Amino acid sequence: MQIASTPEPPYYAAVFTSVRTDIDEGYYDMNNALFAELSKMQGYLGHDSARENSLGITVSYWSDLESLKNWRNLPLHQNAQHLGREKWYESYKVRICKVEREYGFEAQSTFEP
Amino acid sequence: MQIASTPEPPYYAAVFTSVRTDIDEGYYDMNNALFAELSKMQGYLGHDSARENSLGITVSYWSDLESLKNWRNLPLHQNAQHLGREKWYESYKVRICKVEREYGFEAQSTFEP
Repeated sequence: MQIASTPEPPYYAAVFTSVRTDIDEGYYDMNNALFAELSKMQGYLGHDSARENSLGITVSYWSDLESLKNWRNLPLHQNAQHLGREKWYESYKVRICKVEREYGFEAQSTFEP
Repeated sequence: MQIASTPEPPYYAAVFTSVRTDIDEGYYDMNNALFAELSKMQGYLGHDSARENSLGITVSYWSDLESLKNWRNLPLHQNAQHLGREKWYESYKVRICKVEREYGFEAQSTFEP
């Protein structure tokens, strides 16, 4: 498992936090289709995603706000948003952020090459 | 289950993404202690957290960068960071962000008051 690798800030992040309903109909297919499209978007830098019980967080990273807007307006994504409000989500929030600083840690591999 | 309720942007977010090792020793106690302290910090606005398999995302929200720095430097948190690198985390990243825009959706309650 790997954390998204992103360039030196500044870049942008969309933090999508959601609470699911118990309706699964079409959800997983749409999710797979969306992630397939996401990775093809111009300006897309990576994403991380986790859901625990009904609460999910997906953070996608973007080189600029224009790319993020194109993602938001992609017809497949617009359709997903519509279906999401109708069926899949109890609630959600999208927070558009400018990433100003990044730091981290990675354990030394214990494997020798 | 509820998504963190935050004020009108701008405010700040710390996106903490982590991959756990399989070492649990002390982890849950520290996690509980940290979240108890987090909610008492000045400038703290809320947080959302989810872990799926080994990948976890915790996003905490802050009124200003100074408060976020105080959280980072809290002795308990410093100790947690040290133990985290030694035992609990394979890798982690912290991204400091300025939240510029927020929008969302909440289903109408079907309960009548």
